Amino acid sequence: MTLRLSGELKRKIAELLVVRASGHQFDSQRKYPLWELSNYELKILLENGLGGVILHGGSVSDLKNRCSMLKNWARHPILLCADVEEGVGQRFDGGSWFPPPMSLGLKYQENSNEALLLAEKYGKCIGNQARRCGLNWVLAPVCDVNSNSLNPVINMRAWGKDPQTVAELVSSFHKGLVSEGVLSCAKHFPGHGDTEIDSHLDLPIVDNDLSRLKEVELIPFQALIKEGVSSVMTAHILLRKIDNIHIATLSKKIVIELLRETLGFNGIVVTDALIMEAITNRYGPGEAAVMAFEAGADLILMPKKPFEAIDAIADSILNGKISMARLEQSLDRRNREISKLEKISLTSIEEDNLTDEEEFEKKDEFALSEKLLEISITIKNYSYISSYKDSVNLIRVDDIFPCPYLSNLSPAFLIPKELGYKNVVCHPSGVNPWEKNNLKEPLALDRIGKGPFLLQLFVRGNPFRGGQVLSEPWKLAVEQLQAKGLLSALIIYGSIYFWEDVVSCLNPAIPCAFSPGQMPAAQKKILQSFLKSNKEKIANKSNAINFTD
Amino acid sequence: MTLRLSGELKRKIAELLVVRASGHQFDSQRKYPLWELSNYELKILLENGLGGVILHGGSVSDLKNRCSMLKNWARHPILLCADVEEGVGQRFDGGSWFPPPMSLGLKYQENSNEALLLAEKYGKCIGNQARRCGLNWVLAPVCDVNSNSLNPVINMRAWGKDPQTVAELVSSFHKGLVSEGVLSCAKHFPGHGDTEIDSHLDLPIVDNDLSRLKEVELIPFQALIKEGVSSVMTAHILLRKIDNIHIATLSKKIVIELLRETLGFNGIVVTDALIMEAITNRYGPGEAAVMAFEAGADLILMPKKPFEAIDAIADSILNGKISMARLEQSLDRRNREISKLEKISLTSIEEDNLTDEEEFEKKDEFALSEKLLEISITIKNYSYISSYKDSVNLIRVDDIFPCPYLSNLSPAFLIPKELGYKNVVCHPSGVNPWEKNNLKEPLALDRIGKGPFLLQLFVRGNPFRGGQVLSEPWKLAVEQLQAKGLLSALIIYGSIYFWEDVVSCLNPAIPCAFSPGQMPAAQKKILQSFLKSNKEKIANKSNAINFTD
Repeated sequence: MTLRLSGELKRKIAELLVVRASGHQFDSQRKYPLWELSNYELKILLENGLGGVILHGGSVSDLKNRCSMLKNWARHPILLCADVEEGVGQRFDGGSWFPPPMSLGLKYQENSNEALLLAEKYGKCIGNQARRCGLNWVLAPVCDVNSNSLNPVINMRAWGKDPQTVAELVSSFHKGLVSEGVLSCAKHFPGHGDTEIDSHLDLPIVDNDLSRLKEVELIPFQALIKEGVSSVMTAHILLRKIDNIHIATLSKKIVIELLRETLGFNGIVVTDALIMEAITNRYGPGEAAVMAFEAGADLILMPKKPFEAIDAIADSILNGKISMARLEQSLDRRNREISKLEKISLTSIEEDNLTDEEEFEKKDEFALSEKLLEISITIKNYSYISSYKDSVNLIRVDDIFPCPYLSNLSPAFLIPKELGYKNVVCHPSGVNPWEKNNLKEPLALDRIGKGPFLLQLFVRGNPFRGGQVLSEPWKLAVEQLQAKGLLSALIIYGSIYFWEDVVSCLNPAIPCAFSPGQMPAAQKKILQSFLKSNKEKIANKSNAINFTD
Repeated sequence: MTLRLSGELKRKIAELLVVRASGHQFDSQRKYPLWELSNYELKILLENGLGGVILHGGSVSDLKNRCSMLKNWARHPILLCADVEEGVGQRFDGGSWFPPPMSLGLKYQENSNEALLLAEKYGKCIGNQARRCGLNWVLAPVCDVNSNSLNPVINMRAWGKDPQTVAELVSSFHKGLVSEGVLSCAKHFPGHGDTEIDSHLDLPIVDNDLSRLKEVELIPFQALIKEGVSSVMTAHILLRKIDNIHIATLSKKIVIELLRETLGFNGIVVTDALIMEAITNRYGPGEAAVMAFEAGADLILMPKKPFEAIDAIADSILNGKISMARLEQSLDRRNREISKLEKISLTSIEEDNLTDEEEFEKKDEFALSEKLLEISITIKNYSYISSYKDSVNLIRVDDIFPCPYLSNLSPAFLIPKELGYKNVVCHPSGVNPWEKNNLKEPLALDRIGKGPFLLQLFVRGNPFRGGQVLSEPWKLAVEQLQAKGLLSALIIYGSIYFWEDVVSCLNPAIPCAFSPGQMPAAQKKILQSFLKSNKEKIANKSNAINFTD
């Protein structure tokens, strides 16, 4: 082959890559410069055939600009995707941000028709908003069955705990999503629900065999394949009873034999991000890309070094390890999905900007957000919370720099502050709030305040059943405050499993609430309920305790 | 007068208002919804004559979109301004963010020519970037002489501590700024440098008389009036020896007699924000706007309730309290300044977007940022910082939700973390780091860590000499750590006064550094210097202590 042919070849290979970029326009605005390519690199890659970009961060208007910019640079059809599983607002300010899918999984047990209808609207709204921002491929739905309550990475992202619930709900979601003319993605094949290790950090090993997969994990994927899902994303997990050498993403047995042959899927297979530690701890950047491609993947998501990945795949083709036919097959699959998109939305490089819109979220989308909050929030012992001189609003968050759901204007912070509470926020980079070696009274109240306490715990995933329970004994702290008569109310935002665990030790008289969603709208809904009830009680009782007593 | 005339009248009055809006496009993205008008209100006001908008927050691309949007709604020339005294990046992500003006005030003492040259470039860069974002009026320079080291609100924002330094530097800044075709603003008349109360919170009272003002405060204003400054902003301070009833913004003696008659200024007089507590604690929203207008102001900045302000001024005109001639005079002044702007940049509603720019900050602007950092940073006892098993990187910030200069990817946080430091951040909403009633050993080390400590204090304004010194005794904490041999290094970002105070008690052998700028680039420059020196020492010394010892 001549060098020129090799150039043509690399252009084709570049079409099969999906690299990560910030949703912000300028390099200096990138929040994750180690993961997000610079504009210099992006422009070179796009001018040389790059086929896809996954975007992260910024506002919906930033994203709209950014997508136009990338299309302008490419001048060929490109896939523009994002992980907007829980609404465009989950990643891009200004979009709708919904409670996690598990909320509808729980609703389904009680009223399946309503849950299915809401799942369809959930998908339709994401598809519509993604398209309006310039995206054409939504990396959802999660098809994993969260059969393991200790799962740290799927958890509330799943649409349920059993295969039928998930299969029904993802089908409805998918119907809504694709009705808006965007591509879809079923993930993470062959099912990431029964794991206890976060594959972002290390490799989860799963002991389920093929017959178990057929009974549980594969069912939602089969349902979506039947619905014509555009793509399937592979998981970075080792299913050692099926392939005890290669993780799913790199396994022919999983991708070719199980997904293509047994399940008959002929759409796009895309890897999960190759920069995840489960991969990079084991393989070099070029090596991982070649292995994924050999194993049957069509698109390579977030290769650690895109230029190396292109070179390594080109070498494998030039030396005959991978056939040209195999390459053309992946290109065909990509082209087939792209041709399904309306040509105008894909190839248009004109500026279809949002400049004249007063609000991005439409009225019916806002109503859907409200409805989803309403059905997902639980309030027990509906009662008023009084504020005393030394009342403390104690908040626990995963991280603070930045925290997408908490600022000094978020209801969880602002409403108690306005009522005279002292706000104290616990986070991993703060002064230690725990007494050493005192599991009976773990909270160091001398550093926090006298109380009584309004306790607001933001906990998602399930870090509290694993090793972290020792460093953050919140359940014991609840018992400590309760025993001292200092717990005014408890609110948990996030994991249903954590909520169920903590509420089991709670005095039934204590007002408490749970929201799967952590966003400001959820905070407002719960705190305003407590306050509304507070005002009513005050209006009805002349001896009511004053707010600022 | 007929109702129709009253409608025409209100349209004219609306031209004299400057209301605040978020730089973000959508209402749901507003960070300060109590201060920032909704799109609904903005659109109505702009369609009915509103003359100006002050913008705050978002990225430079957001701002560009936003300005186009507002111009489209108005369809008449409007003033679009922002408080970008220290670079467009101070308020809008992606723009250049410079060290505060006082940095050049200090440089001026040592090399006045270089300082003047840099001040001109400083102004030119702000003018250029503001214009590229769609702004046409920059609310700078600060002309206050920071004669009082306890000043909590001007402080490092001033260009110097004496009138000549300030006058020279603001003239150079102004020359650069207006060369880019934007309007300018000298503030805060007649000088806010000799105050100890923050006028955002309450009313500062100043005892200087006219002869003192003529010797100190007025000199920089006179210099800028001579340079043809477009506008002068009035201060919310009470100069009781000149007008013992009315604060400067509302005082005819200050605005008409001193500024117009004595100093001969015939450009736009704009009030400081009328929503500041010094005003709202004393006057109703309509009342304050009428009083400011009567006192001689042309433009009313951030009236608490714009519709009420328009109605109140209209009533005053209809009942003869204010003459139509007075209204026409203010409109004329505004029109005169607007006509100075190139017509194309003002009235253009076409989409002159930034979509194809790879980086907003140009190479020479980046070089200027670097140069300004270089001349403003002090590093003493240039030495390496070792990291031990229990090393703590202790950071103090003013606020955390959000903190514009600190995230988990900022150098002040990330560099020590990568070297094995435990990061602990102290902020007003965190767990209390202080021992009760122990001024000798105020830091509660049992909650923070064993150390040794790298101490990074972000302190601007001067809150540590006033009441807050009792609740945050950082100077005593420095002495505590030093006495225990636990202070590896001290870095102060912000106030020169705080730095001078703390460094006076520091053991001369301890590595320490000061940067007037708090931005990530300043953090990187200082920490990389320490580390560079560290690496060199390690390379040169076989017995050097290991980073992760």
